[in-house]
Amino acid sequence: METELPTIFSAKRTSYVRSSVIREILKLTVKNSDILSFAGGLPNPDLFPKDLLSSVMETVIRENVSIALQYGDSSGYANLRIQIVEKLTDVPWVSPSSITVTHGSQQGLDILGKIFMDSHTNVLLEDPVYLGALQAFSPYHPNFLSVPMESDGPNLYFLEEILSQNKIHVFYANPSYQNPSTYTWSVEKRIKIANLLDTYEIIFIEDEAYRYLDFDGKVYPSVSSFRKRNDLTFILGSFSKILSPGFRLGFVIVPELYQNLFTAVKQGNDLNSNQFSQVVVSKLLETMDFDFHLRSIQSFYQNQKEYLVYLLNQFLPEAKFSLPEGGMFLWVNYPKINSKQFMESCLKNGVAMVPGTEFSPSSRSSSYFRMNFSFLTKDVMEEGVKRIADVYRDINT
Amino acid sequence: METELPTIFSAKRTSYVRSSVIREILKLTVKNSDILSFAGGLPNPDLFPKDLLSSVMETVIRENVSIALQYGDSSGYANLRIQIVEKLTDVPWVSPSSITVTHGSQQGLDILGKIFMDSHTNVLLEDPVYLGALQAFSPYHPNFLSVPMESDGPNLYFLEEILSQNKIHVFYANPSYQNPSTYTWSVEKRIKIANLLDTYEIIFIEDEAYRYLDFDGKVYPSVSSFRKRNDLTFILGSFSKILSPGFRLGFVIVPELYQNLFTAVKQGNDLNSNQFSQVVVSKLLETMDFDFHLRSIQSFYQNQKEYLVYLLNQFLPEAKFSLPEGGMFLWVNYPKINSKQFMESCLKNGVAMVPGTEFSPSSRSSSYFRMNFSFLTKDVMEEGVKRIADVYRDINT
Repeated sequence: METELPTIFSAKRTSYVRSSVIREILKLTVKNSDILSFAGGLPNPDLFPKDLLSSVMETVIRENVSIALQYGDSSGYANLRIQIVEKLTDVPWVSPSSITVTHGSQQGLDILGKIFMDSHTNVLLEDPVYLGALQAFSPYHPNFLSVPMESDGPNLYFLEEILSQNKIHVFYANPSYQNPSTYTWSVEKRIKIANLLDTYEIIFIEDEAYRYLDFDGKVYPSVSSFRKRNDLTFILGSFSKILSPGFRLGFVIVPELYQNLFTAVKQGNDLNSNQFSQVVVSKLLETMDFDFHLRSIQSFYQNQKEYLVYLLNQFLPEAKFSLPEGGMFLWVNYPKINSKQFMESCLKNGVAMVPGTEFSPSSRSSSYFRMNFSFLTKDVMEEGVKRIADVYRDINT
Repeated sequence: METELPTIFSAKRTSYVRSSVIREILKLTVKNSDILSFAGGLPNPDLFPKDLLSSVMETVIRENVSIALQYGDSSGYANLRIQIVEKLTDVPWVSPSSITVTHGSQQGLDILGKIFMDSHTNVLLEDPVYLGALQAFSPYHPNFLSVPMESDGPNLYFLEEILSQNKIHVFYANPSYQNPSTYTWSVEKRIKIANLLDTYEIIFIEDEAYRYLDFDGKVYPSVSSFRKRNDLTFILGSFSKILSPGFRLGFVIVPELYQNLFTAVKQGNDLNSNQFSQVVVSKLLETMDFDFHLRSIQSFYQNQKEYLVYLLNQFLPEAKFSLPEGGMFLWVNYPKINSKQFMESCLKNGVAMVPGTEFSPSSRSSSYFRMNFSFLTKDVMEEGVKRIADVYRDINT
């Protein structure tokens, strides 16, 4: 935190609270609309079926308004939990009572941090890691360890080293189209790692927020689906990328043993998830051609990705990245730069990206930047890449 | 928790998680619709202006859909924060940047617990206390102390004793139409206690969820408005009672010093509050005659309260209670009963109330029961009171 706080008044855990540079960058880009931003992680709202939303709203107000406008079950709206089981999960042991609907998958991270992380609990992360997980877990002050990532998943040599030398309690990972790297674990690695998790009796928090964003419409089997110890595995899902972040809904698949505890913590956090949104999303899922909708998102993002790839190859061939199979980002390595200086010069030159440091569990400096392609028009992307290229050449000549 | 948990896998704080008997009672009443329930705390959805909602939804979909369906500012939707300052606060130092919109006022309690409560922090509560606060604070494992309540606020003799003998860090209270007691602090006590809080440098968490439910339309000045130390006072508000719990929105007025920290914790919890609901509620506030709406809620609840009072006087004159000035409950003392036995017999006889034990910071046994009058029709209330009277006479003859 930048502000000096009267620590005598705050709990010790507040000194571990992590703020987000992304938020600061977003503020800058809102203040100064001349800055072209690859920094966000915003889904494209044009992909949302707005006409359908109107008719669904009418139906909800006509037929379900007393449910939609009331408090609800702390575990979530019953119909929606059934739909999640039917449409959005692949583990065989799941039932509606396994599902707790959360206020975005981010809330699932906070609740699982609260349940599993004491001061100095060993928690293994991917490096790079989803920033929101660092923000959710940090106040509980676990001991973070991290495993280096390759484009097809964790480096197995390092993973086995870490597991054999430390008592790892929780492993948090984002195996499909990871934010920020868009790395996706191969099926082979999924199976191997599921076995390792079973052997070492490790709780796995599998973040599947991007599960359905494969450019070809492929859906990877979850790592959890390969585990024998289904009492030690939690899967997080989200409606933010496949429908809209505005409904602020996600879910967690909770093993039976932990369901009462999870619900009690959820209740203490906020009583129950937004009932109005739950009824609307449930009705949307009932009404819409969901598979068709997914395909249209997937092919739109594929198209956007290809254009950004083309622009970088064309205007800045020094930039290195692996081609993602899905998601909303390119994870770009700009060789021979000082990342802080590069970012500041980019901002001065009217273009924003998120520096890789933000996603490092140890805040290590990095020459990587996360570039979002889901939100910008092609013209803006082109102008943005040109501005980055100008800055890069300025620095490197 | 009833379920045996493999504690080796859970954080220490989970042993302090409190589940809610209310939830168990609600489950029973859902399973068995023959049970007439005074147990809930549900606002009456018939008071909601549904026609207006239809037209507001149309406008939102037409005019604000890209904002409503996107991620939002972690502090809340700017327009709504301005409206909160204009319509729903009385402290002079407030500005839109003081407001963070939360996922119900319950989330405000969790965030403030996270920020201020370490293991063994001295936290003063009212006795009886709002159950949700116990649920939110308990996982942070503070040391709870409590002050006995009178119908016009805390007993001042005991309060001064406690403050002079203990270093109290936080005082949480619900000064207007408290849940469960509906006790309301007099203006005189508000001023005196504000001074005491200043003298002892205590952080005050003022829960104003029921602020606008006065039967006569009166609005008490907040305790915080009498404080000189406005850097040590937080006010929680809610849209659940004045509009609808379905939108799951509340807010916290945060002193400047803590705004960055509060926002960072909010971000870790769930990124931002439900953007769709925020846009809809903002548009509703813009469109509706808010004062007229409040008056109609207030007079409906007054009417309901008077009927329940009449029924108890008529059928069960042994029941003792003070007449509330507002809110949704009667806090009823049933003399000469064993509360556990009384509750069980009531449930067997098809009627539910919440036993006072639930609201005791020390889980002390109590002959009080919380009876809700906001939700039931008059016929149902009459049948319910008759059933309670039958059980009472069975036990006491």
